[in-house]
Amino acid sequence: MSEIILAETAGFCFGVERAVEIAVSALEKGPKPVYTLGPIIHNPQEVQRLEAMGLLMAENLDDIERGTVIIRSHGAQKGVIEMARLKGLNVVDATCPFVNRLKERVETLAGENYQILIVGQADHPEVKAILSFAPADSLVAKSVQELKENPGIKSRVGIVAQTTHALENLQRVASYCVGICKEIKVFRTTCQTTDARRKQVRDMAGKVDVMIVVGGRNSANTARLTEAATEECPRTHQIESAEEIAALGIHPGSKVGVTAGASTPGWVIDDVVGTLKKSPG
Amino acid sequence: MSEIILAETAGFCFGVERAVEIAVSALEKGPKPVYTLGPIIHNPQEVQRLEAMGLLMAENLDDIERGTVIIRSHGAQKGVIEMARLKGLNVVDATCPFVNRLKERVETLAGENYQILIVGQADHPEVKAILSFAPADSLVAKSVQELKENPGIKSRVGIVAQTTHALENLQRVASYCVGICKEIKVFRTTCQTTDARRKQVRDMAGKVDVMIVVGGRNSANTARLTEAATEECPRTHQIESAEEIAALGIHPGSKVGVTAGASTPGWVIDDVVGTLKKSPG
Repeated sequence: MSEIILAETAGFCFGVERAVEIAVSALEKGPKPVYTLGPIIHNPQEVQRLEAMGLLMAENLDDIERGTVIIRSHGAQKGVIEMARLKGLNVVDATCPFVNRLKERVETLAGENYQILIVGQADHPEVKAILSFAPADSLVAKSVQELKENPGIKSRVGIVAQTTHALENLQRVASYCVGICKEIKVFRTTCQTTDARRKQVRDMAGKVDVMIVVGGRNSANTARLTEAATEECPRTHQIESAEEIAALGIHPGSKVGVTAGASTPGWVIDDVVGTLKKSPG
Repeated sequence: MSEIILAETAGFCFGVERAVEIAVSALEKGPKPVYTLGPIIHNPQEVQRLEAMGLLMAENLDDIERGTVIIRSHGAQKGVIEMARLKGLNVVDATCPFVNRLKERVETLAGENYQILIVGQADHPEVKAILSFAPADSLVAKSVQELKENPGIKSRVGIVAQTTHALENLQRVASYCVGICKEIKVFRTTCQTTDARRKQVRDMAGKVDVMIVVGGRNSANTARLTEAATEECPRTHQIESAEEIAALGIHPGSKVGVTAGASTPGWVIDDVVGTLKKSPG
């Protein structure tokens, strides 16, 4: 049998756990039908489990005529909550409190006339939501490289980061901006759970033969965990569920490290660890 | 004869040129005697020239009984100007406008309740002057290493730099602070002349056989130019005057780059370049 080490930081973060609890409670209380706008979290397995309990998913408000709409942990774009209320829907806001704080930080910076720079992925729903509350000259860049390709930066810049973005990227972008701007203000909006998780995966990956990162393929924070792990351990695999383990060809007797993204439910992780323990070797 | 290339950015910066002009004008107008508090600039040769014109130097106000006192380009500590006026002295302020702006930045940050972090040398007169206007919990560190040795950092930090400090050090410290603080505000108070000079010396040093940096041995910005040049060209020499050239043993036919610190007067640079041109080879 292989030796299995599970990262303490693996699995649901505070904001995701809270969003799932809010969804379950909304399914109990109604009014029904209960929808989320987009997948409530970036984990297909957990979304399926909630769908089995009756949760429906809509891409946008036009697809919802009545009942309850849950705003997912990533938040919603400007005007969506008001529009939902005007439509007579019961709005349940499961936006992560850290995302709400990020929004407040952006509003503070805009109020102080800083140009806003969000360090994160332009296509991530959290960034799209935050950006919709920011002034028109705001920028998004996930790295220094991406920022260099964007010529619109001004001399006074207020910098924040997508909550699940790598702290090191925020640090690199801030350093670069000090070199080209006259004044910068930075709020470290990356959530500490994500930072701690990335640090732990790096430590662990350096000490094992095989590293397994469990999480949705649509989860940005899981992808970055896999990225960090791969730097330390070339035999790193990202999987969504226990069924994928057999195909990995893990040698008996290997030392296997397991971690999981912030949107990966405990039951999926338990399933992976259980299957690994039962593997021959 | 060797090939001599002189850096465009060599010599007096705006603030130093202004301070010397102010001193010369004060010597003409009086009232006499005319003192500076500490050397007006960090260049012994220029200080000697001004002394020959009648300028006296005092270490502190106690040594001045009457006449004029010039506040040097680095500025003076809190209360000094007021005390000099109370003593009935004619105060002529030659503080560099960039140093005054740095002081204003520190006051702005203190007013916004940021803990102040000055990136610079604790024993430099400019830093001592600025620090005297800053709250008691302010910090000074010239590098990330020095900051790590100082455990007093808080979660909201306002960062500025000594005007002649290396921009890269400010960038590194800002990046480090993003990692350990919740909020930072940075004013890029390094003066662009100094930044441009350091960039040019790096470019030049990589393309010559010998690099000569002219400047006072008590000049911090000259020392850092020498440091930057040495990284690119191992045969870098820092000298104060043309008399030191003979001892350097420069091979005939060498390609020689020349630059100078912000406090090095044009006549000293001309002397060095002239002597190099007359060298055998």
